[in-house]
Amino acid sequence: MEKLSMLYEGKAKKVFRTSDEDFYIIEYKDDATAFNGIKKGTIQNKGILNNEISTILFELLEKEGVPTHFVKRLNDREMLVKKVEIYPIEVLIRNYAAGSISKRLGIEEGAKLKRTVLEFCYKNDELGDPFINEYHIEAMELATKDEVETIKNYSFKINDILSKYFISKNIILVDFKLEFGKSKDGIVLADEISPDTCRFWDSVTMEKLDKDRFRRDLGNVEGAYVEVLNRLEKQ
Amino acid sequence: MEKLSMLYEGKAKKVFRTSDEDFYIIEYKDDATAFNGIKKGTIQNKGILNNEISTILFELLEKEGVPTHFVKRLNDREMLVKKVEIYPIEVLIRNYAAGSISKRLGIEEGAKLKRTVLEFCYKNDELGDPFINEYHIEAMELATKDEVETIKNYSFKINDILSKYFISKNIILVDFKLEFGKSKDGIVLADEISPDTCRFWDSVTMEKLDKDRFRRDLGNVEGAYVEVLNRLEKQ
Ligand SMILES: Nc1ncnc2c1ncn2[C@@H]1O[C@H](COP(=O)(O)OP(=O)(O)O)[C@@H](O)[C@H]1O
Ligand SMILES: Nc1ncnc2c1ncn2[C@@H]1O[C@H](COP(=O)(O)OP(=O)(O)O)[C@@H](O)[C@H]1O
Ligand SMILES: [Mg+2]
Ligand SMILES: [Mg+2]
Repeated sequence: MEKLSMLYEGKAKKVFRTSDEDFYIIEYKDDATAFNGIKKGTIQNKGILNNEISTILFELLEKEGVPTHFVKRLNDREMLVKKVEIYPIEVLIRNYAAGSISKRLGIEEGAKLKRTVLEFCYKNDELGDPFINEYHIEAMELATKDEVETIKNYSFKINDILSKYFISKNIILVDFKLEFGKSKDGIVLADEISPDTCRFWDSVTMEKLDKDRFRRDLGNVEGAYVEVLNRLEKQ
Repeated sequence: MEKLSMLYEGKAKKVFRTSDEDFYIIEYKDDATAFNGIKKGTIQNKGILNNEISTILFELLEKEGVPTHFVKRLNDREMLVKKVEIYPIEVLIRNYAAGSISKRLGIEEGAKLKRTVLEFCYKNDELGDPFINEYHIEAMELATKDEVETIKNYSFKINDILSKYFISKNIILVDFKLEFGKSKDGIVLADEISPDTCRFWDSVTMEKLDKDRFRRDLGNVEGAYVEVLNRLEKQ
């Protein structure tokens, strides 16, 4: 399969067409942004690390029966994926309160939530990815009721699989963001799963091992991403 | 039944204990606020008008099988109601886009929504009544899953009843806010239903007949409230 022209460039990745129209190549960049693009920077080797971390996690999820867009890792920064039509919806899963939920709802950062919280945001940079619910999704025709049901079920299943897996690596999966797409074969998990899109806390020291180090200028950002990858690679 | 000491004073109403511990007296004020209390003013006779309008609408809903806190109108500004424990949740029902949904989601004001949208807000002035979903309600223990189900069912039923009723008065029910409470006899609709808590548009001229006239300084605020009451009183 040949890499063809770039289809679009996002804040963290580039997407390329390939000679097979059902597949894309995703290239992971070192660019980092936060607060809806207001804060910009670079995290050394982030693209390489996120490509490896996402590969491990997509393979785990596929093994556990969650369909994903992942086909294979091609090299340092590139991954072959199924072409999908991305739903313009971000799914957030929260096990502990951190970030926006703490600020918006006055829940202390670090508090374990009494139940897993799922949130939907409308993926729209101009509007700042506003928080929406299932009625907005139907009214705006972002997805059908059945598609929303499938996306919710996959999201909770992914949370179960990943939470268990990460805690075995002494990492608390605090929260994470998912994107789903419609492929030839149905709804699949797409995009990436990485320290850019998850909050990871060391379960012993509570140290942050994710993009909050960049957002909050905590230093040693690359080191945190390396640490996550090292723990995932250790058997 | 005797009116006893004031229990609390809100932005639009005062609540008094009575000699029967299962009942409260609600007194409707002329005070008007908007934008979470930032804009303050008075609308002449608003308390009298909202007491009458709410009475007519609570009676209609009771007749149609929706349990409410309403017992009877006592005088110009006062209503006897069942004592309830208010759920700290605001339910918004939207048939047309207006106000915050237009701004947040970029939907043109006045557009008919492709499906009725229900939104929940956490009733908390300090946090600015943030938008929440059913998972937050459970996680924060604001209501149980069953209670949320009942509240949603009542809300949609109320929308059906009121939309039909208002259109017969040449008024479009654009959106409205509800509050529910737990009474001795189960979940009931509480608070008020008035031009303070609904958006009403004349179905012919599209003129606004509600608190948006105050929020947006459109003038003739009292006249709009009087017009709504007159139409409801006409058989
Ligand atoms: N399998 C896929 N097929 C098509 N598009 C995808 C796929 N996986 C991810 N994308 C999209 O690739 C784009 C680039 O990713 P990213 O740089 O993270 O973008 P963003 O700036 O929106 O966060 C995003 O719009 C994402 O939704
Ligand atoms: N039946 C009832 N029993 C107890 N409290 C009620 C009842 N109906 C309404 N309330 C509460 O009365 C308070 C006063 O109303 P209002 O002035 O509208 O307050 P707010 O400033 O919160 O909008 C509100 O907190 C409302 O939830
Ligand atoms: Mg992205
Ligand atoms: Mg009120």
